[in-house]
Amino acid sequence: MMDSDRIWTAGLVIIGDEILSGRTQDRNISQIALWLNLQGIRLGEVRVVGDTVPAIVEAVNSLRAHHDYLFTTGGIGPTHDDITVDAIAEALGVPVVVHPRARAMLESYYRSRGGITDARLRMARVPEGAELIENRMSGAPGIRFGNIFIMAGVPNITAMMLDALSGTLEGGRPMLSETVGCWVAESEVADMLGATEKAHPGCQIGSYPFFRDGRVGANFVIRSTDRAALDACRADLAARLSAAGRDPVQGGI
Amino acid sequence: MMDSDRIWTAGLVIIGDEILSGRTQDRNISQIALWLNLQGIRLGEVRVVGDTVPAIVEAVNSLRAHHDYLFTTGGIGPTHDDITVDAIAEALGVPVVVHPRARAMLESYYRSRGGITDARLRMARVPEGAELIENRMSGAPGIRFGNIFIMAGVPNITAMMLDALSGTLEGGRPMLSETVGCWVAESEVADMLGATEKAHPGCQIGSYPFFRDGRVGANFVIRSTDRAALDACRADLAARLSAAGRDPVQGGI
Repeated sequence: MMDSDRIWTAGLVIIGDEILSGRTQDRNISQIALWLNLQGIRLGEVRVVGDTVPAIVEAVNSLRAHHDYLFTTGGIGPTHDDITVDAIAEALGVPVVVHPRARAMLESYYRSRGGITDARLRMARVPEGAELIENRMSGAPGIRFGNIFIMAGVPNITAMMLDALSGTLEGGRPMLSETVGCWVAESEVADMLGATEKAHPGCQIGSYPFFRDGRVGANFVIRSTDRAALDACRADLAARLSAAGRDPVQGGI
Repeated sequence: MMDSDRIWTAGLVIIGDEILSGRTQDRNISQIALWLNLQGIRLGEVRVVGDTVPAIVEAVNSLRAHHDYLFTTGGIGPTHDDITVDAIAEALGVPVVVHPRARAMLESYYRSRGGITDARLRMARVPEGAELIENRMSGAPGIRFGNIFIMAGVPNITAMMLDALSGTLEGGRPMLSETVGCWVAESEVADMLGATEKAHPGCQIGSYPFFRDGRVGANFVIRSTDRAALDACRADLAARLSAAGRDPVQGGI
């Protein structure tokens, strides 16, 4: 395998009772997945766990053993239910310390907002040896420990932290994708999809059916890291659909 | 522990490259979480895995060992990337068979839609010993194998399958929740939240900050299976916020 073909993967642990209770609709999985892909890294697995130390420790240790990178979201605020830093420090076997620069950032941020408090200082706590991830939005930084990235639960803040990390992580070739839509029941073209995928090594075709305006349709998403292979596969699928009397819709429906 | 206090939990495996690629925003986690709570069952953990047999087998076997119920979504359609039934049969150590009633249902459904085909018959395949979960929408049933529930990836179809299962699963007392909102930085009331939670055994308080219209606020979600304890905790938190000169917003912001 050439080094440029190496596939880099990341695991993601979403931490929060609010996701498991159904109260909050998660937005971080897709946000982080799309961002990772731009860095040439694939999201390999996600776990959603509640706000308990054992659950976080187990998920973190399991995923970091299997992936190049590990991301977490949630549980890094100032309140009693924010236990992510403690849990990750336990998973890593290091103590929790106050990071001097995080403390300075929080003191500066809160100078005009009522001053620093013990609760606010909780957000300066990190696993010993960690670096900070800048967050232009709220003053409270994210945390980097080697290949582990500890991010906020609020999607807008997570976005700021991802922005600060953009271009700094080693990755491979981004996964490219093209979509061909068709007003057809996927079951009518299932054999065609399988045959097309087989004819184009290095491409995967996913089939995503939908019901809209009382009609059945599907989007066929072709993925590859090779632009030429991707384009050839897309053209072939469109040609096969046309030959079968179906109207392929470039870009999807 | 009285039997009525038993906590029933479920694991959920979301199967699909489209979620891990970020292309599709998952809707099944929150939908299934909310439905489970109505059945008196708590969603204990979620894993999102790609369309590969080893990843599905590992997630299914890990979660079913730790929870009363296991749900999966995705990968039960007619196309080549639909491998969930094969993977779960492998996890269970049973062969895949064609379920006679599923076959009859599909034959009937497709009689006016071009007839049955090999691809469509894929949707009648089940792990040997499984029962069907009715789906009034598309003719293709979900699958039940003991305490394992294999559901569609398309959220509207999953909803139909959940509807067919409503009231049929044994559970405990539903988790109840009440929300108190406040235009305050959560860090300003962090100690109050912790103290209030401690004063009300059986209640958990989650703090969910947000930024809206240029202002900082938070919703405090109190959860308990005991209505009286929940109401007392909510009233106490509202009183403490008021005493601190903060305006509590019943029901949240």
